[in-house]
Amino acid sequence: MKKLILTLLMGTAASAQSLLSPSKQIQLEFKLVDNGKPTYTLTYKGRPVIEQSLLGLTLERPQALESDFKTIKAETATGDETWTPVLGEQSRIRNHYNELKVQLLQTTTERKMNIVFRLYDEGLAFRYEFPNQYRWKYFKVTREVTEFNLTGDHKAFWIPGDFDSQEYVYSETPLSAINGDQSQISNGIGFKGPMEQTRVQSPLMMKTKDGLYINIFEAAVINYPVMHLNLNPKTFSFRADLAPNAIGDLAYLETPCKLPWRTVMVSDDAKDIVGSRMILNLNDPSKISDVSWIKPIKYVGIWWEMHVGKSTWDYAGSQNAQNAQPGVMIPTGKHGATTANAKKYIDFAANNGFDGVLIEGWNVGWEDWFGNWKEEVFDFVTPYPDFDVKEVTDYAKSKNVQIIMHHETSGSVSNYERRLDRAYDFMEKYGYKAVKTGYVGRIIPRGEWHDGQTMVNHFNWVVQRAAERKIMVNSHESSRPTGVHRTWPNYVSAEAARGNEFNAWSTGNPPMHETILPFTRLLGGPMDYTPGIFEIKMSAYEPSKKEQIHTTLAKQLALYVTMYSPIQMAADLPENYEKHQDAFQFIKDVAADWDDTKILEAEPGDYVTIARKAKGKDAWFVGAITDENARKSTIFLDFLPTGKKYKATIYEDGKDADWEKNPKSYAIKTIEVDSKSKINLNLAAGGGTAISIFPAK
Amino acid sequence: MKKLILTLLMGTAASAQSLLSPSKQIQLEFKLVDNGKPTYTLTYKGRPVIEQSLLGLTLERPQALESDFKTIKAETATGDETWTPVLGEQSRIRNHYNELKVQLLQTTTERKMNIVFRLYDEGLAFRYEFPNQYRWKYFKVTREVTEFNLTGDHKAFWIPGDFDSQEYVYSETPLSAINGDQSQISNGIGFKGPMEQTRVQSPLMMKTKDGLYINIFEAAVINYPVMHLNLNPKTFSFRADLAPNAIGDLAYLETPCKLPWRTVMVSDDAKDIVGSRMILNLNDPSKISDVSWIKPIKYVGIWWEMHVGKSTWDYAGSQNAQNAQPGVMIPTGKHGATTANAKKYIDFAANNGFDGVLIEGWNVGWEDWFGNWKEEVFDFVTPYPDFDVKEVTDYAKSKNVQIIMHHETSGSVSNYERRLDRAYDFMEKYGYKAVKTGYVGRIIPRGEWHDGQTMVNHFNWVVQRAAERKIMVNSHESSRPTGVHRTWPNYVSAEAARGNEFNAWSTGNPPMHETILPFTRLLGGPMDYTPGIFEIKMSAYEPSKKEQIHTTLAKQLALYVTMYSPIQMAADLPENYEKHQDAFQFIKDVAADWDDTKILEAEPGDYVTIARKAKGKDAWFVGAITDENARKSTIFLDFLPTGKKYKATIYEDGKDADWEKNPKSYAIKTIEVDSKSKINLNLAAGGGTAISIFPAK
Repeated sequence: MKKLILTLLMGTAASAQSLLSPSKQIQLEFKLVDNGKPTYTLTYKGRPVIEQSLLGLTLERPQALESDFKTIKAETATGDETWTPVLGEQSRIRNHYNELKVQLLQTTTERKMNIVFRLYDEGLAFRYEFPNQYRWKYFKVTREVTEFNLTGDHKAFWIPGDFDSQEYVYSETPLSAINGDQSQISNGIGFKGPMEQTRVQSPLMMKTKDGLYINIFEAAVINYPVMHLNLNPKTFSFRADLAPNAIGDLAYLETPCKLPWRTVMVSDDAKDIVGSRMILNLNDPSKISDVSWIKPIKYVGIWWEMHVGKSTWDYAGSQNAQNAQPGVMIPTGKHGATTANAKKYIDFAANNGFDGVLIEGWNVGWEDWFGNWKEEVFDFVTPYPDFDVKEVTDYAKSKNVQIIMHHETSGSVSNYERRLDRAYDFMEKYGYKAVKTGYVGRIIPRGEWHDGQTMVNHFNWVVQRAAERKIMVNSHESSRPTGVHRTWPNYVSAEAARGNEFNAWSTGNPPMHETILPFTRLLGGPMDYTPGIFEIKMSAYEPSKKEQIHTTLAKQLALYVTMYSPIQMAADLPENYEKHQDAFQFIKDVAADWDDTKILEAEPGDYVTIARKAKGKDAWFVGAITDENARKSTIFLDFLPTGKKYKATIYEDGKDADWEKNPKSYAIKTIEVDSKSKINLNLAAGGGTAISIFPAK
Repeated sequence: MKKLILTLLMGTAASAQSLLSPSKQIQLEFKLVDNGKPTYTLTYKGRPVIEQSLLGLTLERPQALESDFKTIKAETATGDETWTPVLGEQSRIRNHYNELKVQLLQTTTERKMNIVFRLYDEGLAFRYEFPNQYRWKYFKVTREVTEFNLTGDHKAFWIPGDFDSQEYVYSETPLSAINGDQSQISNGIGFKGPMEQTRVQSPLMMKTKDGLYINIFEAAVINYPVMHLNLNPKTFSFRADLAPNAIGDLAYLETPCKLPWRTVMVSDDAKDIVGSRMILNLNDPSKISDVSWIKPIKYVGIWWEMHVGKSTWDYAGSQNAQNAQPGVMIPTGKHGATTANAKKYIDFAANNGFDGVLIEGWNVGWEDWFGNWKEEVFDFVTPYPDFDVKEVTDYAKSKNVQIIMHHETSGSVSNYERRLDRAYDFMEKYGYKAVKTGYVGRIIPRGEWHDGQTMVNHFNWVVQRAAERKIMVNSHESSRPTGVHRTWPNYVSAEAARGNEFNAWSTGNPPMHETILPFTRLLGGPMDYTPGIFEIKMSAYEPSKKEQIHTTLAKQLALYVTMYSPIQMAADLPENYEKHQDAFQFIKDVAADWDDTKILEAEPGDYVTIARKAKGKDAWFVGAITDENARKSTIFLDFLPTGKKYKATIYEDGKDADWEKNPKSYAIKTIEVDSKSKINLNLAAGGGTAISIFPAK
């Protein structure tokens, strides 16, 4: 299937090489300048995207891999293969690119570094590779030189470059207005790591004044820190900015090795960005041979009731108990994860066709888990006295429902690593197949950040250990995915962005939030956003509360299609679904794994409309969402097979719907459609439309 | 058994309290001075030992627990109990002290801190205790105020205050000549941590000009850094100096808690220091209920042959392979831990009555283990291709010999912690009962030091996990023991000082070295010094080598008595023992666990003579060692039961023996003795005498 055509460009030094994408619309130029400094330049349809930008690394001591290079060889190749993801947005993915591999020799040190460029039709990827070489094995990276010199003051959708959290609201501003230090903003984030005014996170989505969409990101982040981007606001130049470890180093490496891919997607059609599989393609194929146990999961859970204040994670009071008597636990009576409550959720899951039930707060430690940088919090195996693991698990099995394990680490990674084998033994004993992990708070080992090399390695290590046990992982507060779930397909989902939960107890997520995520966070992999909140206003639980979901109810349904995740939650309380059984039908129907995906409409910060075909089924689902502006549009169902009749059920905003004033107004209608049909969408402010399409009986 | 008499000194504030030792020879005075600063003063037989010295801690942010105190209560008590150690230098230990507990309230913060003083007949112990209290749970120590104000320019036996290693040669100088930065000295230490000119390690042994012996140390170091001592050379005042973590903090604590004991032993007889059990007594009783599996071990091993260059730990070359081809291992043919060689050692152990065989270099990783601060080195479960674990283990079992597991971590603690359960599973599978651990190199998590809180916790954690599996631990390159083996008696021994091995490949250990260790390192617990080297000069292996053991052969025998360890190695090669079967008989005979111990003679840096009774046997062993000076003396055997005849075999230096010029000259004679006998000792320069005493037939 894989086709590689190698062309040797030259045997000895040449100062410049160029490469075209398969479509020939994107061009890359590599050039050594000045004293042998590697650079690259990128154009799209002849228009400059990245102006000449430096490449290289700075190493420990007065060593740099940024100049004194000569090119000893440059060769091009073409890759074209089609592969099948285990779970995904489409069942067949084409990986088609042209490649330029430049072999460099640093003349002063005799060290070898290769830079490999790949041009896809959606953009550029490049990475540094270090072959095995004489007397150079270990090295330490203290700075990455990589630049992205942009052509002007583009509009950007950015979040501040916090090395410890991505759970921020996006700002939509010109590059020149980037002001990333939001450390004083009260936005519900538990702990903020180091920030800089000019540092923002990747993926960074931009739009030029003349309508080019540009996205800077990375792929296959393994044994290396997460790439943030630091702006020179005068030149509109970004430099790769990496989270240091406790003593200020960025990465410890050993030849031979390959660093993560840096990517620049570019198109004049925003849909090309959202629909790209480039990030996935840049990752290695699955390392798991038997993948039969990796399956999509739709689930409910004891979770939202804690967010809305109906119950608590802890059994005996304050989550950072300053006044707890040592060794004494007096139950408050508000504990959520009781045997009885778990059975209630299991019944609800079984009655409504859900695969699993997540139970948070089942294990001791929550009295004292947060904010104290405490190392020994949870042991991951000891339930609270009011939670009978065996009884709950047996009950779930009798109802053909799986329990989803929860491992909150409170950021104490050293503690989790010491106990992981035992935690997985426990899961194996009870037959649990999936775990949601959590990393709220400052990391231990102290001095490490969520986005540093140590933590990147931790997140990947947990997934590999889980694969040994056939356990699926859904990580929260991890570093954000970069397509590594292609390689470890049991890494089924992650949070790693501001999720729906923030709407329950903070200023929340503005209506445009979900229209940006498909251009940023979701490019790296599935997101466990936890949609499906029907009880929009928190005043329903406590009259004085002002917090609310910043969408209409119909938009909550549409998110099941626009926010891809093969482990997908119906996040609201059973009693709220019971009040809206008609709307709940969409959540019961919608798939979580797909044969095909069509991006019908997309504009970052404004709207997204996506149609997807359920895997192995003749059923389609459409999700359309808008930002704070109401929106009308028309979509064409030409993705349906010709000549066949379908029944489309349209879940849309009521005529008087508005995310703020009337969010629960919705209407449901069923019509007959075929591939020639079109549907007029009417999205309220902060609204959305969800459509299920099944064959007509 | 335990007798506690409480006396309430006063209900409210008083500015001074005093306490006497049971013998009434040592007096402690506690006093609040200036603005409520706690201080203490110590005298011995009316002579000042510690002049008024400050107590307290500095906490994070502008918080200090060093002034503004008032005494709210002070009470005295007497403790007197006798307990039985699992393994030990004596089978019954008396714990007898008077106690003063001062309850302090910091008036500005309303925080409570207790200082508990205990006076033993051998000296003072005191510690800080923090009771459970209102709204004060977590705190961070940034500095310890504790002072030890000495009265003059005493002679001191010190090693530099390296936070990463204690493997130094002792300096014997006045306090005023302390110059602890020996970072440039070529002394065979692989990696040196942070040092300061005026910082030395504890235990610190001193002698005043008027003949008082003073020792500053600590006991029960749990969840707190190791205490080093920083000197003000103008005032002869030491301050507690603790290893920081990666970000500069010293300790993270949570009320209620008790910090380690700080100790000041004092006597006008040096024997009282060596013979003291005060450090052990200050630790909590055993937390292991079934201790039947904790047994002394005498062992040989595949170990010294690597030190002398006869074989290697690695299978395929260089221990920090800069040029290894990835994934390729080409055997050098020098690998020590082969199946065949292991069987040779097993035969030797079985034939000579040893319990165990240590096998180092059995597992993959040694090609690339050292000096590169590499995280993933060993997995602790994968043998080299020429080492058949099952075959070796089965063979050992058939010979009634146990294999001692070896876990070298190369300082990569995070890697070891992740793999520990699997490593212990492996040991359990093969029935291994003891593990020697190693921590050569810089610690990972990076930024931590061997003597910091994180590592102290690690060493204690490994022992606790081992106890769950009934595994005994002998740690090398750990932080030095402080009597914690009373609490975890499976922590059978440690290295944690400069061992015999340094003689093989460095400037070595000067002849006085072993006369200092009983006054310093051994006060905290057993030391796996690995004595018994008969082939003194390394030129025997390679004519160009200048290195040698800095003792006579007879002194190597005496060390089995003077260097207490219940896991005791016969470290030399089998072929060297076969050349000296007569001297080897002592090693075969000597016990490793004791009913009783008598310190017959002791002077730090000069000589030590100890007699010990084998546990449960009517057999005594005597070891006498001297420094670089020859020494004559007479010992009295009045420790023997009256009226019973014994046969004493005396292994002494030959008349022409000298550690440097003629180290292998020895003489053996057997005489009949009883409790009225005396024996004249004739120790060569760097020499020693070993005596076994068995009942006459």
